[in-house]
Amino acid sequence: MYHHVKELMYTVRIGVPDPRFGNMLLEQFGGANGELAAAMQYSVQGLNCDDPERKDLLMDIGTEELSHLEVVGTLARMHLKPLKDNRKAAHEDPLIAIAGGGGVALFNSMGNAWTADYLKITGELDVDLRSNIAAEARAKIVYERLINFTDEGNYRHSSVPYDSRNYPHEGIYCRARKHGQADLLHWKETSHADLS
Amino acid sequence: MYHHVKELMYTVRIGVPDPRFGNMLLEQFGGANGELAAAMQYSVQGLNCDDPERKDLLMDIGTEELSHLEVVGTLARMHLKPLKDNRKAAHEDPLIAIAGGGGVALFNSMGNAWTADYLKITGELDVDLRSNIAAEARAKIVYERLINFTDEGNYRHSSVPYDSRNYPHEGIYCRARKHGQADLLHWKETSHADLS
Amino acid sequence: MYHHVKELMYTVRIGVPDPRFGNMLLEQFGGANGELAAAMQYSVQGLNCDDPERKDLLMDIGTEELSHLEVVGTLARMHLKPLKDNRKAAHEDPLIAIAGGGGVALFNSMGNAWTADYLKITGELDVDLRSNIAAEARAKIVYERLINFTDEGNYRHSSVPYDSRNYPHEGIYCRARKHGQADLLHWKETSHADLS
Amino acid sequence: MYHHVKELMYTVRIGVPDPRFGNMLLEQFGGANGELAAAMQYSVQGLNCDDPERKDLLMDIGTEELSHLEVVGTLARMHLKPLKDNRKAAHEDPLIAIAGGGGVALFNSMGNAWTADYLKITGELDVDLRSNIAAEARAKIVYERLINFTDEGNYRHSSVPYDSRNYPHEGIYCRARKHGQADLLHWKETSHADLS
Amino acid sequence: MYHHVKELMYTVRIGVPDPRFGNMLLEQFGGANGELAAAMQYSVQGLNCDDPERKDLLMDIGTEELSHLEVVGTLARMHLKPLKDNRKAAHEDPLIAIAGGGGVALFNSMGNAWTADYLKITGELDVDLRSNIAAEARAKIVYERLINFTDEGNYRHSSVPYDSRNYPHEGIYCRARKHGQADLLHWKETSHADLS
Amino acid sequence: MYHHVKELMYTVRIGVPDPRFGNMLLEQFGGANGELAAAMQYSVQGLNCDDPERKDLLMDIGTEELSHLEVVGTLARMHLKPLKDNRKAAHEDPLIAIAGGGGVALFNSMGNAWTADYLKITGELDVDLRSNIAAEARAKIVYERLINFTDEGNYRHSSVPYDSRNYPHEGIYCRARKHGQADLLHWKETSHADLS
Repeated sequence: MYHHVKELMYTVRIGVPDPRFGNMLLEQFGGANGELAAAMQYSVQGLNCDDPERKDLLMDIGTEELSHLEVVGTLARMHLKPLKDNRKAAHEDPLIAIAGGGGVALFNSMGNAWTADYLKITGELDVDLRSNIAAEARAKIVYERLINFTDEGNYRHSSVPYDSRNYPHEGIYCRARKHGQADLLHWKETSHADLS
Repeated sequence: MYHHVKELMYTVRIGVPDPRFGNMLLEQFGGANGELAAAMQYSVQGLNCDDPERKDLLMDIGTEELSHLEVVGTLARMHLKPLKDNRKAAHEDPLIAIAGGGGVALFNSMGNAWTADYLKITGELDVDLRSNIAAEARAKIVYERLINFTDEGNYRHSSVPYDSRNYPHEGIYCRARKHGQADLLHWKETSHADLS
Repeated sequence: MYHHVKELMYTVRIGVPDPRFGNMLLEQFGGANGELAAAMQYSVQGLNCDDPERKDLLMDIGTEELSHLEVVGTLARMHLKPLKDNRKAAHEDPLIAIAGGGGVALFNSMGNAWTADYLKITGELDVDLRSNIAAEARAKIVYERLINFTDEGNYRHSSVPYDSRNYPHEGIYCRARKHGQADLLHWKETSHADLS
Repeated sequence: MYHHVKELMYTVRIGVPDPRFGNMLLEQFGGANGELAAAMQYSVQGLNCDDPERKDLLMDIGTEELSHLEVVGTLARMHLKPLKDNRKAAHEDPLIAIAGGGGVALFNSMGNAWTADYLKITGELDVDLRSNIAAEARAKIVYERLINFTDEGNYRHSSVPYDSRNYPHEGIYCRARKHGQADLLHWKETSHADLS
Repeated sequence: MYHHVKELMYTVRIGVPDPRFGNMLLEQFGGANGELAAAMQYSVQGLNCDDPERKDLLMDIGTEELSHLEVVGTLARMHLKPLKDNRKAAHEDPLIAIAGGGGVALFNSMGNAWTADYLKITGELDVDLRSNIAAEARAKIVYERLINFTDEGNYRHSSVPYDSRNYPHEGIYCRARKHGQADLLHWKETSHADLS
Repeated sequence: MYHHVKELMYTVRIGVPDPRFGNMLLEQFGGANGELAAAMQYSVQGLNCDDPERKDLLMDIGTEELSHLEVVGTLARMHLKPLKDNRKAAHEDPLIAIAGGGGVALFNSMGNAWTADYLKITGELDVDLRSNIAAEARAKIVYERLINFTDEGNYRHSSVPYDSRNYPHEGIYCRARKHGQADLLHWKETSHADLS
């Protein structure tokens, strides 16, 4: 069961709204390697998992990705808001301006709707953990490229905490692949301490 | 920010697994009028909403739909599990058996991947609330049809609680359309009492 | 059965072609809340409807939306024509310029192909009428946003007539939900008078 | 501008509803080589056409395909209606039964939503006429295969008239490719006589 | 069985990389009328063909289209490379820059993923050959429009050889439609001589 | 540049055609984890790769996957052929029977068109190799499940050789991730010896 707290996982602040950058951020929101893809891939694998320890692991990380999704969406919207009224900017992003009123939507940066075809879920845990390792690596490279393309100090500040979760996630999945259940429990406890 | 508790919103139990019914249930899981569509439509509208009261309302209902998604997914998987090993059943549902190992996936009952094209989000709150009223009505009719097609007493038991939330949701959206902010706060408190 | 008359429902004239605006107009042509979506949603509901009065209503409004589609498509094409030969403009809209030769296509403003996933059709008339009310509201907001983004007086002139049909359509669907068949016939006759 | 008359282009009658056959018919309704694809391909080419004679030709044939769409949809629905209440049949076609209430939808026989990606429109008339010749040939082969798979005498009776239009359409497009405008006008008049 | 030689079918050289033109080229790479569509349409028809002569013909032309795909992809990538590091250019093409690191992907010029919905394959050879004639014509018009939009002498040099294959392909398909097997063998030998 | 030899990489023979199994095989043909996905993912990564050794590696494995695609397609078609004429079987697979004439198409087992959204290509080699390791693991599990669901001895015979390439591919990608260029050349030579 899910609960929602009225507080973002990380604080977000921006300087001058930059709609073009806000549009790029949609890669992390509704894109193939973004937070919704991660949240859904891990949570659905969790639903399909019979091993209680790994089920918990997958549901936990999946829930964390939902919190990331919320942060990215909030940040992107701050940057996209001018599209509601600014005609010149709206020309650049007609789908967001005309259809979406300057808000975020579950699209990538080229307006393609998010699709569950992005997900890799076989129901075979060992295989799925490999897919998750790869997914974390892709999410990380998307984040790094976005960092390189921004002057937005605030974005760096907001992004660094949640992005720094990608590396531990990747580690957790690697360890989960190699070891059995008792080890997993141990490492889960250990990594939670590392990441506090 | 989201938290996940290791307990379903509603208990689910089944008698004999029925893969065909489990496949039908995917309409509520990854279908156009299912729980993921509801969760995403309301939550993204919430991200786009500047009015704090309505923002809370949308995020709350969106989060509840995630909990419903979890219940439906768990129930569907219980029914689909035989597909992993049973050849005759697997012929009927090759995508789930071969690609998914007998687990749930974010597809509808005909194996079509969930797509954000199902969502109706304009960023104009009055318009979006109309879309939500319609969405709740559609979710309800899907639920009713599923009820009619099942012998599964347990499904009825599991479904009735969360489906009974559709009607209140519809009411909340209707009231939210008609009245201003102060009224909304009042009715939110009132409806929470009604629905306890 | 359909007949086509070689005359647009509303006259269209433009001043200087504006390819960027023509591209925005595709939201009303091949977009999620545009005229093809409306035409198909209502007409297919009409095919599925057993009640003769409501069937006629749905087929009538669906046919009217086809006429709107024709008007929007003609207008959009007038604005897009320069893309056939103008390299600089073509860079902005390569799909239309290279694949489409400067003509309209059933895409939205970001080149995404129209999909029947945009439609909401359950076969349950009361539910479908709610979906139609929401659809009319969304079409209206798209139209209003396009108006705000254009200098194009002619567009306003062409659009106002067919857009002013959205409000009556919404009213017709609202009344159709609340009342039985005899009432519907009465209001259909009344509204035809109102709208002449 | 379009008008709709409350009378099908061809009468349809069926004996015993056959949901499985009704589902196959969806290939002609919402399938890649069906009537909606034909109607849209020709009509949008017509919108993009500057030559008045060819524009008329394309709009005429496009409109006729809309009338075919209506006939196919009516016929398919007659066959699909039992899915609304019959559980065993509903298992076979869950999307139509659960999501669609036993009605038709713009899907193909495997529940895939119709997409404008099916259309071939380049804006270059000579090229587009070749695409139309091919489209007519494909529609014809789909029709012939459906005929072979049905015991339904009524289907044959209903289908033969509108299918017999495919061959003349193909001829019209072939002639339109080879000859200039004056010739086209002559052949249009001639073929109308042939086909009365 | 396929073999790959480490040498492009045609040499490609460019002057100054032009990311905007590189993006247009994606219409020939991952677009509806591009080389992957041609390669797959002909090769899959070949797999479905029982007539050995025509099977060979289809597999041969399909393989040639794979070589074209390789040439186009190499050329497009040369033009797109600056997107990896150049922020201003990246704004114009965020999907390629952020998700793809400045490389090619199987998208069209608007970032839409290639889909097998682009293909026309009925398994009826006479019908499929008509579809292929139309496909070659469309590929040719896309090529001609790209030529018109480029200053890139090198592109013309690289493109002319492989594009000049479109016309012979169209001829081969026309002849294959009209004549029986013995004739086909004769013409295949003849055309190979023509095209050396 | 590609060459095609008129001989399958592995011989295929079947006993009694089994259309249901043939349909399952489409997961390996046009499915998310099938041979086309593998061929395209590796080949496009190869096009984007600047390192000559890794480029060769990716193009080699990609080409091999095309040969696998040809084998799977041939085998699937042998099983699907009865759908062309057998009405009862056609009911089960209407898309293949009616639209495809009993032949293979680039769909998965539920008739969903192959899409480039299945591919994971970031242009960052280290990340892409992780994605490839995961892809090979998924292809392998699909193969294993198909083996379990078949009585078809011939399928096992045909499949074992090309499936046994999945494990070496996975090994090649693992080694390619960990080591630099000189090592890669060494291991490529070594693995070719292993796999002869």
